Amino acid sequence: MISDRANPFGPRLAVVQRNIVAAGLDALLVTNLVNVRYLTGFSGTAGVAVVFRDRCMLAVDFRYASVAREVAAIFPTHVLQLTIVSGGFDDAVTSLLHQSDAARVGIEGASMTVSRLQALTAALAPVITDTSAPPGITLVPTERVVERQRAVKDRFELETLREAARRLSGVARRLRPFVAEGRSELEVAAAIDAAVRAAGFERPAFETIVASGPNSARPHARPGSRRLAAGEGVVLDFGGVYDGYCVDLTRTLHLGPPMLELLRLARAVREAHAAAIAAVRPGIVPSEIDRAARDVLVRHGLGEAFGHGTGHGLGLEVHEDPRISKLPGALPNEPVVPGMVFTIEPGAYVDGIGGVRIEDDVLVTEDGCEVLTDVPIDL
Amino acid sequence: MISDRANPFGPRLAVVQRNIVAAGLDALLVTNLVNVRYLTGFSGTAGVAVVFRDRCMLAVDFRYASVAREVAAIFPTHVLQLTIVSGGFDDAVTSLLHQSDAARVGIEGASMTVSRLQALTAALAPVITDTSAPPGITLVPTERVVERQRAVKDRFELETLREAARRLSGVARRLRPFVAEGRSELEVAAAIDAAVRAAGFERPAFETIVASGPNSARPHARPGSRRLAAGEGVVLDFGGVYDGYCVDLTRTLHLGPPMLELLRLARAVREAHAAAIAAVRPGIVPSEIDRAARDVLVRHGLGEAFGHGTGHGLGLEVHEDPRISKLPGALPNEPVVPGMVFTIEPGAYVDGIGGVRIEDDVLVTEDGCEVLTDVPIDL
Repeated sequence: MISDRANPFGPRLAVVQRNIVAAGLDALLVTNLVNVRYLTGFSGTAGVAVVFRDRCMLAVDFRYASVAREVAAIFPTHVLQLTIVSGGFDDAVTSLLHQSDAARVGIEGASMTVSRLQALTAALAPVITDTSAPPGITLVPTERVVERQRAVKDRFELETLREAARRLSGVARRLRPFVAEGRSELEVAAAIDAAVRAAGFERPAFETIVASGPNSARPHARPGSRRLAAGEGVVLDFGGVYDGYCVDLTRTLHLGPPMLELLRLARAVREAHAAAIAAVRPGIVPSEIDRAARDVLVRHGLGEAFGHGTGHGLGLEVHEDPRISKLPGALPNEPVVPGMVFTIEPGAYVDGIGGVRIEDDVLVTEDGCEVLTDVPIDL
Repeated sequence: MISDRANPFGPRLAVVQRNIVAAGLDALLVTNLVNVRYLTGFSGTAGVAVVFRDRCMLAVDFRYASVAREVAAIFPTHVLQLTIVSGGFDDAVTSLLHQSDAARVGIEGASMTVSRLQALTAALAPVITDTSAPPGITLVPTERVVERQRAVKDRFELETLREAARRLSGVARRLRPFVAEGRSELEVAAAIDAAVRAAGFERPAFETIVASGPNSARPHARPGSRRLAAGEGVVLDFGGVYDGYCVDLTRTLHLGPPMLELLRLARAVREAHAAAIAAVRPGIVPSEIDRAARDVLVRHGLGEAFGHGTGHGLGLEVHEDPRISKLPGALPNEPVVPGMVFTIEPGAYVDGIGGVRIEDDVLVTEDGCEVLTDVPIDL
């Protein structure tokens, strides 16, 4: 008997299968590896899942044969079957689909490349001159089928994210002594990365940002050889991957009393950060959460200084749905629901003065939100 | 006067422009960020280059405005112009293309997603009811236009790769003491990563592999809490990114005298590695280099035990053209030419015995190859 605890993937597959039926598809070709991992637990660097209405086929290559066998072993065989591919993945997919009676097969439009769709379409086209050949299979571009499901975390994921946020907060709390006058940005970044690993993370979730003085005016500065000096601000933005799941945290420290202009930025961002967190509750749309932060900064004359969105979803990817921004771009501005986890990270950046950003990770609850990270704003 | 040394990008743009003309295109939309970096020097996490026959437009967002201004400053303004995008990139691309007289515009089929092509095609379609609207623009999928150029390194890149290989070899030479009985794989991996950073690399080029005992039979094992024990083999596969360029190295160490079966694998792989390096010369096709290694392993009865390709190109990506494998898959099996840099990394993996892999980085020269890495096989 396989316990629910041992296999969170079965219920995830069941949900995606319901959505496949609802979309009028016979199968979904899952080529986005993060989605493959979410649905099956397989976390190699190459592989494909073909989710049929009633089962799932996982295809991996030679290198991952033994890992994938362990993955498959936790599923009942009628739920997930494994194929070890010796040629290309798309040859394997073509033959799997031809062996099935699937006619309409979804592809993941947001991650499949144009070249791959062209090649697959050609391989799946019916052979006109051969009357015994199977009928053609239509590939249907879909959007965010698995991603939308991933945006709402299940209890296994929440357990992991909570623990990850607790550990990252611990790293942040021990950070002060590393951030000292005379140290280079790269040295501070290396110290943060070492602390992240020592806290049990597999790796940093992205390239750690240590942006000092004028560099802090660049939201995505890379750490360099510049040395920290008295009176400056330093933006520290770092994250960790814990059991596959990403958390992300930013604090802006000052080396001694900051310039008055920088202090003004810091106060405004702190207020914007609090306003956005206060706005988070089920039913609010992402653009409204963004507006809560943005309105504060505009009121302080810093509307132009806040050139990025207020936050992004966290999970198997460090940037995923939902996007908390002014205009969610290509994504629908769908109301947030309990179980979503995302960052709140307003900032203000002014050339010649510097930049400030404050970031925490929140979980949408039934009646508001819970801040998963737990670190004083000024460490 | 801008010296050639200061700007290697001008000549790269000129080559791609010649290839655009030769392909009957008016422009190439470069959305692959690695290609954007190769052509312009811009290395942010978002951006697009539109390479016209006579100029290049680089579009970045707010976050990268100041970085991109520094990038643009080293080009004459008639060669590269900068656009700071406030809406989406594809809106900016659409308006840039509509302002030009381009009719046939290449897109990068291997990296552009189906969703993005659909959206761009719709945005660029002519407005039928508006007779003053510009004529429609056709988006033409292209393959490997910039990638093929990147496969042959210019002198700036060779300088960087040589230095990177020298530094990674230094890391490998100092590695022996870290690999000790009782240490966990994760501890050894952390020590390697720290040594890679201390050697001046920006970061490891991929997740370092430390695969001990039975784990060594998995070519892409992830390091875990397993502790190294006497008599075992340990595969150490690690790399570094130096000034954007990746190098990659593998050695297999033995903790004390290895089992006879493991010794047999090690000798065969060593011989295969030497045979493949001896085969590298201008004009040979990748599959023949692969065969030189594979024939040796087959002769030792280890054909089935060598389930991956013999090597891969190195550059701004840790896996790029050329692929040195049995069947180069979707890629043409084009002869190698001087200036190509790739790994030679045969291996043999047998469940119950373990695995061995040996990897070095080679540069194709006028009359053979030069091994850029320089480390004794057994450290």
